[in-house]
Amino acid sequence: MDAPTPLAILPVTGLPEVGPGDDLAGMIAAATALLDGDVVVVTQKIVSKAEGRVVAVDPADAEARRELAEREAVRVLRRRGELVITETRHGFVCANSGVDLSNMAEGHAALLPLDPDRSARRIRDALRARTHRELGVIVSDTFGRAWRRGVTDVAIGSAGLRGIVDLRGTPDAMGRTLVATEICVVDEIAGAAELVMGKAAGVPAAVVRGLHPSVFGPGSVREKVVRSYGEDLFR
Amino acid sequence: MDAPTPLAILPVTGLPEVGPGDDLAGMIAAATALLDGDVVVVTQKIVSKAEGRVVAVDPADAEARRELAEREAVRVLRRRGELVITETRHGFVCANSGVDLSNMAEGHAALLPLDPDRSARRIRDALRARTHRELGVIVSDTFGRAWRRGVTDVAIGSAGLRGIVDLRGTPDAMGRTLVATEICVVDEIAGAAELVMGKAAGVPAAVVRGLHPSVFGPGSVREKVVRSYGEDLFR
Repeated sequence: MDAPTPLAILPVTGLPEVGPGDDLAGMIAAATALLDGDVVVVTQKIVSKAEGRVVAVDPADAEARRELAEREAVRVLRRRGELVITETRHGFVCANSGVDLSNMAEGHAALLPLDPDRSARRIRDALRARTHRELGVIVSDTFGRAWRRGVTDVAIGSAGLRGIVDLRGTPDAMGRTLVATEICVVDEIAGAAELVMGKAAGVPAAVVRGLHPSVFGPGSVREKVVRSYGEDLFR
Repeated sequence: MDAPTPLAILPVTGLPEVGPGDDLAGMIAAATALLDGDVVVVTQKIVSKAEGRVVAVDPADAEARRELAEREAVRVLRRRGELVITETRHGFVCANSGVDLSNMAEGHAALLPLDPDRSARRIRDALRARTHRELGVIVSDTFGRAWRRGVTDVAIGSAGLRGIVDLRGTPDAMGRTLVATEICVVDEIAGAAELVMGKAAGVPAAVVRGLHPSVFGPGSVREKVVRSYGEDLFR
């Protein structure tokens, strides 16, 4: 790898409230000046809103919320109180199938996009057409993890990014060959973007600037990052 | 939360090769100009080297490597070929108990620090004494995850940082109260730092500048982030 360079993570502020059919790429391009090599991280919430992936649910009705989460799942892995850990049809393992009532109009919940990689591709295509910049796009969401407390933002969809940067066969600093270091850069980028967004601050997008060129290329979250049921040791 | 501000992630370059007893804080302070509010992320590898947590092992001897990994574990959770997923005495779940042969002199392996939070505290205390700056320190390592391919850097030790920023009770952008959003900012910061380090580039530290003040405060990885065996649904 080349000499390391600094990274900037820039919140995209001033986006209007998003509704069904809205042009997210147009909103983002109007709010910030993009450069070649940028990665635009867009939270799932506004992607779902723009795609109309919103349903009515009574927030006080725990049973209705549970049914909704299970309807969005292919498999329930664990239950604890009102929480269900499910596998979604995308292959994501997360709480309540990603169904989310925060930052929604009262009585409504956002569902995950049907195909978050496709959502990312559409936003990227529209951003490229509008800005003529070469860039990557990540759709991010906030997931829990096994073994560690708290949640972090991860990539649920991506476009223009390799997803995993495979350092197998790259010599380490000692000049010997690394056996297996497949770094999931899209998750690290999504988590980095979360640090400037903040759940309560209402910043639903960020730009990560200065990434190494090796992160760009063909790939998607479904293809590169999602571990299949059979491959997974912890499901 | 206040208005979001940009974040800078700066690689710390030019550090000398680290050996037992070396003063990491002195090396880092000499290599970069720190500011109040910075978080210094130091990779486990150089912390282990400075602390003498290095043992001899024949890299060609799979059985010796396995025995070493199991000796560092309190529990073996899964086996697949030469890989063992273990729980370390710190409570981390990771491959081969974090025993690592990359970027090491031939025939040597680095073990995890005995107490990575203490390692972080010592580095922070020394950096504060030297620079008179208020800052946080994270010791990072590269771990795999359940359900998703690839590895990401996470925090195995921290000092001066709350670890998890708890947004429970904070109003969301709609003015309603969020139920539970406990963001593991130290893991997001560690992953962000990895993006400027790169396994092969030989950059073992980075500075994250511009974080929200809410990430600073009392806390440690062991106290805030490690999920205990009994609490965990996936062990």
